[in-house]
Amino acid sequence: MIIQDEDQLTAAVLAETERAGDPRVREIVRALVRHLHDFAREVRLTEKEFDASLDIVTRLGRLTTPSHNEVRLMAGSLGLSTLVSLMNNGTEDSPTSANLLGPFWRQGSPRMDNGESIVRSPTEGPPLFFTGRIVDTEGNAVAGAEVDVWHASPAGLYENQDPEQAEWNLRGKFFSDAEGVFAFRSIKPSGYPIPTDGPVGDLLAALKRHPFRPAHLHALIYKPGYKTIASQLYSHDDPILETDAQFGVVQRLIGTYERHENEPAPDPDVTEPWYSLEFTFVVEPGEAWLPTPPVSAQRSH
Amino acid sequence: MIIQDEDQLTAAVLAETERAGDPRVREIVRALVRHLHDFAREVRLTEKEFDASLDIVTRLGRLTTPSHNEVRLMAGSLGLSTLVSLMNNGTEDSPTSANLLGPFWRQGSPRMDNGESIVRSPTEGPPLFFTGRIVDTEGNAVAGAEVDVWHASPAGLYENQDPEQAEWNLRGKFFSDAEGVFAFRSIKPSGYPIPTDGPVGDLLAALKRHPFRPAHLHALIYKPGYKTIASQLYSHDDPILETDAQFGVVQRLIGTYERHENEPAPDPDVTEPWYSLEFTFVVEPGEAWLPTPPVSAQRSH
Repeated sequence: MIIQDEDQLTAAVLAETERAGDPRVREIVRALVRHLHDFAREVRLTEKEFDASLDIVTRLGRLTTPSHNEVRLMAGSLGLSTLVSLMNNGTEDSPTSANLLGPFWRQGSPRMDNGESIVRSPTEGPPLFFTGRIVDTEGNAVAGAEVDVWHASPAGLYENQDPEQAEWNLRGKFFSDAEGVFAFRSIKPSGYPIPTDGPVGDLLAALKRHPFRPAHLHALIYKPGYKTIASQLYSHDDPILETDAQFGVVQRLIGTYERHENEPAPDPDVTEPWYSLEFTFVVEPGEAWLPTPPVSAQRSH
Repeated sequence: MIIQDEDQLTAAVLAETERAGDPRVREIVRALVRHLHDFAREVRLTEKEFDASLDIVTRLGRLTTPSHNEVRLMAGSLGLSTLVSLMNNGTEDSPTSANLLGPFWRQGSPRMDNGESIVRSPTEGPPLFFTGRIVDTEGNAVAGAEVDVWHASPAGLYENQDPEQAEWNLRGKFFSDAEGVFAFRSIKPSGYPIPTDGPVGDLLAALKRHPFRPAHLHALIYKPGYKTIASQLYSHDDPILETDAQFGVVQRLIGTYERHENEPAPDPDVTEPWYSLEFTFVVEPGEAWLPTPPVSAQRSH
């Protein structure tokens, strides 16, 4: 359609969506055009700002490689990733434990027995004894679910980023028992900064936001008949909880770590202070899936 | 801020913009977050659609090179480029002739005298005698303005894309005289398709839109004291006017080409049918600028 003026432009663009074959594509493109135009109109975007915006999109894409997803980091930094997760998992009244998958899941984690340790090479940090339970949205135990767990070392690095760690260090695959319970031993997780050498770093700096994520423990819970969820369990005592650079911290996913001093640990070899954590993950009926393994999950050493 | 649920998420993200040092950055980021979240909520974006969206952004950036600006083509295909141009040039009641710059402007076009031809190597197509006038928003002639003109050959290629054309073919730089008038001879422009090997091509195909731009003639008008404008002048007889893939066709930028048969042309060598075109370009007081020369403007042959 020929453009008459600024007011009629949006209608002219929307008119060219009418031939779309797929109604869902049409719906999404129309909403995108309206919201993009409304955004530009609301802030009266200048030509220089428009050019700068196009440069930012270009840099987001060009910085995105198999081992560094700048585009996804930006979506997280704007709260979009968590919004999509919340909209698509459970309901407001009956939410599941879904959260961000993140870029560090690896396919093929070693199968472990409940109670075993996922510490495979010397790793500093207070011992953690974790007990998880998996239930459905009505509270019934979900037995036989496959649970991949993984987390960063106290240095803030996953094993596939860090030549100092043994392969599969701080990763393992467990199965829930008849009561929906699984358990493992590890060390208490630590937080770490996201990369700041691209547009995400520029955004955080402009907003005087720090680049840190609070300490968290990842779980991917898979059982046919249930919608697979990636979850993250945050540490109640982390000072970054309120200001997570990726807006991942959902209140119900904050786990309370219990510190034990002068108490015998489940493993008698432990003589230092140790932590225990119990947490119940909620899943819902639906389609099971497994993530496409990101190339970043390959070991770089 | 910790996320409670889907409803409170946007407020939690906006709270983290409060420390921004620059009020304009804060305003833009807040509007972006609100409109992005509103878009996702309105269409209830699924997790698969979200992942596909991130892939599209990644491909836009990765396909953008010095000679192919996929990001800018997408902005054009969504009508955003023309919206920004209309918002920033003149007013609804008193618009200028600003339009899209496009990727094919070249710095250093040869200085020409009014009336000279910009056809520098044999180029098929009906002769065109163009007379332009430059005025300000009150209709006063603007003398001494530098006017770069350029357009594609009938094969749909600019000279720097096409080894068959001489360097600077269909390009020239003219100056407006005391009446604001400049004039040159060329051939009548033709339309051409934009590239369709990326997400822009996917979008057009999904919407059953063709990839063509209608025939147009570019002008960049520069004079200190006036806001520089890039303009495009469209051909009234082009069948693509209503469906320009880049939404550039603004009603007041459609020029009426007069066809002359059996009438003597301004150049007596012309014996075939020829076209004349007169057009008045409107500029406004403001800051003069020149585009950063895109690397795509370098000759590839």
